[in-house]
Amino acid sequence: MFFASDNGAPVAPQVMAALVRANEGPAPSYGADAIMDGVRARIREIFEAPEAAVYLVATGTAANALSIATFCPPWGAVYCQPEAHIAVDECGAPEFFTAGAKLVHVDGPDGKIDPAALAHTVANATPVGVHHVQPAMLSLTNLTEAGTAYSVAEIAALAKVARAAGLPVHLDGARFANALVATNASPAEMTWRAGVDVLSFGGTKNGLMGVEAVVIFDPAKAWEFELRRKRAGHLFSKHRYLSAQMQAYLEDDLWLALARRANDAGQRLAAGLRALPDATLSFDPPANLMFAALPRGVHARARTAGAAYYIFSGAGNGPEDELLEARFVTSWSTTDEETDRFLSLIRG
Amino acid sequence: MFFASDNGAPVAPQVMAALVRANEGPAPSYGADAIMDGVRARIREIFEAPEAAVYLVATGTAANALSIATFCPPWGAVYCQPEAHIAVDECGAPEFFTAGAKLVHVDGPDGKIDPAALAHTVANATPVGVHHVQPAMLSLTNLTEAGTAYSVAEIAALAKVARAAGLPVHLDGARFANALVATNASPAEMTWRAGVDVLSFGGTKNGLMGVEAVVIFDPAKAWEFELRRKRAGHLFSKHRYLSAQMQAYLEDDLWLALARRANDAGQRLAAGLRALPDATLSFDPPANLMFAALPRGVHARARTAGAAYYIFSGAGNGPEDELLEARFVTSWSTTDEETDRFLSLIRG
Amino acid sequence: MFFASDNGAPVAPQVMAALVRANEGPAPSYGADAIMDGVRARIREIFEAPEAAVYLVATGTAANALSIATFCPPWGAVYCQPEAHIAVDECGAPEFFTAGAKLVHVDGPDGKIDPAALAHTVANATPVGVHHVQPAMLSLTNLTEAGTAYSVAEIAALAKVARAAGLPVHLDGARFANALVATNASPAEMTWRAGVDVLSFGGTKNGLMGVEAVVIFDPAKAWEFELRRKRAGHLFSKHRYLSAQMQAYLEDDLWLALARRANDAGQRLAAGLRALPDATLSFDPPANLMFAALPRGVHARARTAGAAYYIFSGAGNGPEDELLEARFVTSWSTTDEETDRFLSLIRG
Amino acid sequence: MFFASDNGAPVAPQVMAALVRANEGPAPSYGADAIMDGVRARIREIFEAPEAAVYLVATGTAANALSIATFCPPWGAVYCQPEAHIAVDECGAPEFFTAGAKLVHVDGPDGKIDPAALAHTVANATPVGVHHVQPAMLSLTNLTEAGTAYSVAEIAALAKVARAAGLPVHLDGARFANALVATNASPAEMTWRAGVDVLSFGGTKNGLMGVEAVVIFDPAKAWEFELRRKRAGHLFSKHRYLSAQMQAYLEDDLWLALARRANDAGQRLAAGLRALPDATLSFDPPANLMFAALPRGVHARARTAGAAYYIFSGAGNGPEDELLEARFVTSWSTTDEETDRFLSLIRG
Repeated sequence: MFFASDNGAPVAPQVMAALVRANEGPAPSYGADAIMDGVRARIREIFEAPEAAVYLVATGTAANALSIATFCPPWGAVYCQPEAHIAVDECGAPEFFTAGAKLVHVDGPDGKIDPAALAHTVANATPVGVHHVQPAMLSLTNLTEAGTAYSVAEIAALAKVARAAGLPVHLDGARFANALVATNASPAEMTWRAGVDVLSFGGTKNGLMGVEAVVIFDPAKAWEFELRRKRAGHLFSKHRYLSAQMQAYLEDDLWLALARRANDAGQRLAAGLRALPDATLSFDPPANLMFAALPRGVHARARTAGAAYYIFSGAGNGPEDELLEARFVTSWSTTDEETDRFLSLIRG
Repeated sequence: MFFASDNGAPVAPQVMAALVRANEGPAPSYGADAIMDGVRARIREIFEAPEAAVYLVATGTAANALSIATFCPPWGAVYCQPEAHIAVDECGAPEFFTAGAKLVHVDGPDGKIDPAALAHTVANATPVGVHHVQPAMLSLTNLTEAGTAYSVAEIAALAKVARAAGLPVHLDGARFANALVATNASPAEMTWRAGVDVLSFGGTKNGLMGVEAVVIFDPAKAWEFELRRKRAGHLFSKHRYLSAQMQAYLEDDLWLALARRANDAGQRLAAGLRALPDATLSFDPPANLMFAALPRGVHARARTAGAAYYIFSGAGNGPEDELLEARFVTSWSTTDEETDRFLSLIRG
Repeated sequence: MFFASDNGAPVAPQVMAALVRANEGPAPSYGADAIMDGVRARIREIFEAPEAAVYLVATGTAANALSIATFCPPWGAVYCQPEAHIAVDECGAPEFFTAGAKLVHVDGPDGKIDPAALAHTVANATPVGVHHVQPAMLSLTNLTEAGTAYSVAEIAALAKVARAAGLPVHLDGARFANALVATNASPAEMTWRAGVDVLSFGGTKNGLMGVEAVVIFDPAKAWEFELRRKRAGHLFSKHRYLSAQMQAYLEDDLWLALARRANDAGQRLAAGLRALPDATLSFDPPANLMFAALPRGVHARARTAGAAYYIFSGAGNGPEDELLEARFVTSWSTTDEETDRFLSLIRG
Repeated sequence: MFFASDNGAPVAPQVMAALVRANEGPAPSYGADAIMDGVRARIREIFEAPEAAVYLVATGTAANALSIATFCPPWGAVYCQPEAHIAVDECGAPEFFTAGAKLVHVDGPDGKIDPAALAHTVANATPVGVHHVQPAMLSLTNLTEAGTAYSVAEIAALAKVARAAGLPVHLDGARFANALVATNASPAEMTWRAGVDVLSFGGTKNGLMGVEAVVIFDPAKAWEFELRRKRAGHLFSKHRYLSAQMQAYLEDDLWLALARRANDAGQRLAAGLRALPDATLSFDPPANLMFAALPRGVHARARTAGAAYYIFSGAGNGPEDELLEARFVTSWSTTDEETDRFLSLIRG
């Protein structure tokens, strides 16, 4: 009964098998391995982007911060949602990698940026004198941190505002596969066709050991990205093991199958939570991440039985029936049995 | 016949097995995994340093740059050998992580820093006014980039100079195991007992997939290191896979066995090169890294036969008998058969 | 009729005279001038802080950014009001000088931070894991950017919240003298006695050519400040000319006399604006900075007659009677005649 | 008898008069003052560069570090002479402003960079992989820190090497006027016609209170420079007082007259030193900066009599006749009487 994070899930067996397979004899280091050639070609194919620059790093924070630093100058403003991972959960990595750019929050309903609010913020900042940080970039997250999914049309509407102001668009796709599955969109539709310039294409939360691809649709920025990656210690000497993970991830669309599995588990869990008289699901989750309020007593029972998930404001003392919000995340490895056992448990 | 780099070697089978073993069910992320608890305890035991802070990162550049940034302020001077990895091969990572510290070169024979030269440089910089970068740190490398090994006494002599001036000491141990085996020293002797404050304890070049430990002997700096690691994108969500590699590395002293194997292969190769009438070994290599000059024609023959190693100034056109210097590195996976085949090949 | 900014005012004649006086023969450079010794002693006396470290720089942005960088690590959060100069008007200088710290906005009525809101924000951020920027500092501004003045009690209430959380407190006193005069407080009361650790003690807006003092009440940070100042290019070789300005500023309490003059001019202007049937003063200004809405037609008439002040959202086309907000700032050099002429002009 | 530094000299009377003149009524701030329009036009005229971007800052470190940061990326190598001010005397300002670029030393005779050595260093660094900092810039100093002057031909030879490798060229002209006078070159000849892209055009050491112009010959970098200047706290609100200094400096070629006066004083001093049996002038100084070795006893006599200049390795105890090297700098304010008195003093 593990719903703490998709980060806690193990590596998909196909990926582990690929690592074992890659472990034969010597191989060129630092990304010159033959497996990477195949990965690059395959990602270009999947994204229908034959010119795209493709790089692998091992963490989402690295993917995001390097992507942003490559497109945003030190005096730039990066527009993002207030709860964005880059704003809240990376200990200032974007500020570090950019040498001091500023994240400017733009909010909206459902954990998404509202295009009108973005347009208003950008308009207010333009024309902008030398005293202020300069509008520089838009960073979106899909799935959002709230568990909602931007549709292709929503991405496009936001990117349109950004591009009208000359701002490149970053998409933090730590859960990109989950978002695609939830919206039935193609990789190209969700990214460059909608106006995205650079994508953090997540793998770690979806069955890899630790690999995220960065896909830069305009290859003019490729060399700068490579230098920034090296300089940040994110170029791996034994790069073939990153390549092998990504190769297995893409083969036979394993990445989509894993995300579908995680999303299905999420739907099952959501349906169960929705049916509880005491529980309040904060919205209908389209994928594998959701928030629900449950009575303190129920949380206590779940914890005692070994269920793992994040309860906001802790589970300290208080009335048994006080509702405490919690976050639930399913993954490719969540089983129906596990979900059902948990639901049965909290039903009491 | 692969002598290009110990980075090109595969992962030791015991390590791959440990990864497979670790791949069971969910686990807490970001270093809270149970395996890490064992790793921390074991490293403290090995180093006879029960208070040491122990962290894992995935690249040597990250280990070095984070270690240096934790001990050196932005206005500091880091004394290092001119060919040090931090000075030459990290695309300015120390400068990036420290927000602009300066690497100041101090040379000496055999690719080592000369203690007298260090003392002289530090003395010249002291007392130092506000106009100059401030003496801040000493960074050593063992094995050195030249393939030589500092003895414990040599480390201690250099650290003594540093500590007399109040400078903390970093040891880049990307090939720490090779250095220990070559000098018959214990981990504690080579580090804190000799005056080292922070160690990049390499694993990647010695059979791991991508793990280096950072061992900070004074735990007062631990929390700052953690924040810097996170902020640099070097805290892994699925950390258990880093822990598992390091666990296997340390178990039954596998790390020393792998290094011994690499060093033995190096000795075999060196003996063979030394015996060649045309070759000039630049010095007697104590471990697994060496430089030798060979005739251009011999290099060409080796290349054609598939031998991989680094030839300086390329292998362009020129007289067949012109001596061109090359670097050879053996690894835990180098076989005697492979070495002998190569030696036989270049003997002609 | 110049109400655009106190930055636009000339240098007080006593200050210009001091510059001329200082221009005799050679003098030690970089702050070792004898005049600076007197300035240091006098500032310590005025602030009743015999241990304080005192430095001069030439711009408010330098004073603020250096002060903050000296107290806030790269991974820190600096709490400030959303309209603070450091947040809006310094093109990211605090982020640059700190190597990427984050400014976190806390709002409240009257352009001031609300202590309860600050307490809530800090509490929410504590205990804080490694994933998030760490609560690090509080930065206040007095006069605020809204033209209001924090009382000593208000400063103390905010500083109490900060100090309870272990956060040092910075006071941006670009208009410190105006705030003191407006609140009848002493320098010590408004700063260290209220819990302030470091003060940007403004001079430029109040009659100097370009000098701000930084007063660090705990001298332990002094040397770091000096290094940061030098490294940022803010240590002046011909420092005596900064010293001379500050000397004249402090002599016979010229600084307070100039601020009193500016505040009196502000009161006269405010009284006049308040009396206008068409104008809406946004609040009762305690000092020399105020905001008022006037009909577009009145603005047009004022502009034509040569009045200079800042109109928000420009003065483009629109109905004559539409109210447009404007900012008015008086200075030590504003004359009653000038104010009266302007008031008479806009009265029509 | 002040030969410690041209930084210690007072402000030229014409400049002080211009400051007094500028101190009338209000003026637009942040560089929008009318005086600056004239300064910009005049500098373009003097440099025969009608498109050049012209900015004022108050310190040489700011001029240099901002210039370099505008042209050199964080992963760049800046080639400079080992004793260059940017390398030795700015506490790492270039590293700070560039977010971690590396200064790479190239030496040569007479305190100048040798073009062949530069070509060799750049060639060795090209082609350069991702592991190394990238050749990015050449920074020259004229007058050099050794007191020698590059001729126009020497500047051009070095710039040719740089430009062949695609590297922009910075000239640190803290003593640019002294160099021009010493070489009889025109401003255009010494800069853009010789291949210089950006100039720190010094004023402070040559009679100003604290103003250096930055002249960027390709205006494409102008806006980036403005943002970096603001963000670094080097945009002055009361900018007219910088403009006024520079205006007076340029009027009637005051700047060249002041430099000629300083150089003449230097020649007089050098001639006197050369004539001393005990003194060794390290080279024939072409301008106002020189090094000479004198017996310890002579130094002691000079000190006692109030002469101020810099003695290397101090003047501690030792034999009376031991030669200790010292630096002597004359300025526009050095009088013949003062020089003669000093020479007479040390002649004993």
